[in-house]
Amino acid sequence: MAVFPLAPGSTIAILGGGQLGRMLSLAAARLGFDVLILSPEAGGGAGRVSAHTLAAPYDDPEALRTLAGIASVATFEFENVPAAVVEALQALGVEVAPGPLPLAVAQDRVDEKTFLNASGAPTVAFAAIDTLADLRNGIDRLGAPALLKTRREGYDGKGQTWVENHADIEAAYDRIGRAPAILEARADFVRELSVIAARGRDGDVVAYPAGENHHEAGILRRTRAPAVLSPATREQAETIAARILTRLDYVGVIGVELFEMKDGHLLVNEIAPRVHNSGHWTLDGCEVDQFEQHIRAIAGWPLGPVTPLAQVEMENLIGAEVEAWPKLAAEAEARLWLYGKGEAREGRKMGHVNRLSPLKG
Amino acid sequence: MAVFPLAPGSTIAILGGGQLGRMLSLAAARLGFDVLILSPEAGGGAGRVSAHTLAAPYDDPEALRTLAGIASVATFEFENVPAAVVEALQALGVEVAPGPLPLAVAQDRVDEKTFLNASGAPTVAFAAIDTLADLRNGIDRLGAPALLKTRREGYDGKGQTWVENHADIEAAYDRIGRAPAILEARADFVRELSVIAARGRDGDVVAYPAGENHHEAGILRRTRAPAVLSPATREQAETIAARILTRLDYVGVIGVELFEMKDGHLLVNEIAPRVHNSGHWTLDGCEVDQFEQHIRAIAGWPLGPVTPLAQVEMENLIGAEVEAWPKLAAEAEARLWLYGKGEAREGRKMGHVNRLSPLKG
Repeated sequence: MAVFPLAPGSTIAILGGGQLGRMLSLAAARLGFDVLILSPEAGGGAGRVSAHTLAAPYDDPEALRTLAGIASVATFEFENVPAAVVEALQALGVEVAPGPLPLAVAQDRVDEKTFLNASGAPTVAFAAIDTLADLRNGIDRLGAPALLKTRREGYDGKGQTWVENHADIEAAYDRIGRAPAILEARADFVRELSVIAARGRDGDVVAYPAGENHHEAGILRRTRAPAVLSPATREQAETIAARILTRLDYVGVIGVELFEMKDGHLLVNEIAPRVHNSGHWTLDGCEVDQFEQHIRAIAGWPLGPVTPLAQVEMENLIGAEVEAWPKLAAEAEARLWLYGKGEAREGRKMGHVNRLSPLKG
Repeated sequence: MAVFPLAPGSTIAILGGGQLGRMLSLAAARLGFDVLILSPEAGGGAGRVSAHTLAAPYDDPEALRTLAGIASVATFEFENVPAAVVEALQALGVEVAPGPLPLAVAQDRVDEKTFLNASGAPTVAFAAIDTLADLRNGIDRLGAPALLKTRREGYDGKGQTWVENHADIEAAYDRIGRAPAILEARADFVRELSVIAARGRDGDVVAYPAGENHHEAGILRRTRAPAVLSPATREQAETIAARILTRLDYVGVIGVELFEMKDGHLLVNEIAPRVHNSGHWTLDGCEVDQFEQHIRAIAGWPLGPVTPLAQVEMENLIGAEVEAWPKLAAEAEARLWLYGKGEAREGRKMGHVNRLSPLKG
């Protein structure tokens, strides 16, 4: 069983072997921890900077037993960890953070929005869709266009489609494979923000200043942080994040995506129970970045400061864009982070660059 | 053969598996490189964050061949790499940086001081000691007390002794085992400084602001950086570093230890052809730390900025001091770096802490 604060030299298990796992592993190393990466794919970017790697399906009983023999705490870099895996790890005496509740909530878009509204974290109006009739009723109530998404899975714009008008209802339902779904009213937001926040094992909560996000083709393109916010909006963002974390009895870092409406009030778009792409600016903009913050939280260490040291524009390097590395390496103010992925496939996040400038006011 | 700038995804070999290798490996990972650690000891802190490890003596021909099959560039975390190893690697087509000349110079204290003085980098007066008669003559010329050091090996105060007076000459010679030695005049310095500098493959040179070092029992205790220096002293420090780097046709990061004399002029105490303990403050005090700077240099990338972002006091955690980690983890302004070493033996560097405060002036 894990004893907290977890002592340096202990091993932390991370489910998932991509860039988030990799940057978590680098942060863990700084604090003297060893890392075990469990991932179905061997040779990923995270495993290549970690003491232990297990190439096995997440629900492989033998792999989980091996993991439990080495690591006393486990976390993950993606939200679609099967509940059965978390239960199996807990049964083996491994502390899993964040726990099963945040995972369950984040894995189902209807449960997520229901939870958020109940927590005082407002969202757009929505309807659960199980039949074509539900979708017709939903469009009647929420208006068109409205966004139809599968309840589960889907990321970077996958598994979702716009219902353009009444005539489009049946075709839209077909486009998402008539899967259990959620219909979301269109949010007339002025911009997308996100807050990266953390909660420690002692219940302490911190929130980095919000960043402003720009998407292209459903994929995060860039984050500017800290975003210029009115004091009221800033307070609202932090209050929302704190409510969510506390209500989920959360341990670790969370990403909270927000819509800022014309009048300055905020709606939660979605939550990610893990370190988040829109928090990569903290790697060069803060003393303690989101990855170290997550390791601190799950290890039962006190949380670190979230004060920004610089203004950062984080830009994702997607697919072939990574080939610009020689030019980026020569940019004095550009801090380059490359993920050690082999093939620069279209749409694949290969790295990111943080461009620094002095803090605004 | 290596093609520069070295492309991300390439493997860099590091000879040595301790904390310097570990922090180099973490920096290399950020830039998308894989690392191979060659070290006689298996399971060291560096290997546990690296893609490849070879546990073999440095001069093991098979290990060197394996290394050459994976890595195209090699570097080291310590200066006592045997010349034969460097030659063997070069014969296998591996680019070794820094090259044989800086290593040879740094491995022999007489050659080092001779080189420094010839380069316009002044040192204390010294004498080469091969016989007891040399030592008597040396004391006559340089006065007592004077510092007697073995020409080769020795670090953290090992392999050196003070010749207190004429009566102590023979005993002092015995204390260092009558090995080939150097006798150094006592430097009446007011403080010890060091400059961490780097030279790229294109000949570009950068120098971080000097730090002020405090030793205890021959081991670096703390570095405060940037040190407050007069403009003339600052220029002198940078000029000295640049002369050394250029004259050695150096590639990589170098540590230049300096004595500041009462009148402000500087003498070089010694050079370390590698990343240096007194440069750990850059990990949290600069956008690009000494480890990334070294990787950039040896990979033929443009050097990064050396501008300080904060005032840093770096304190080494030696031996059992590392047991204070729970307290240090709770200090808001303390950034903790732990090296993943098992046993906290006396005198062993287990980690360090960087305490940040706003930049002065």
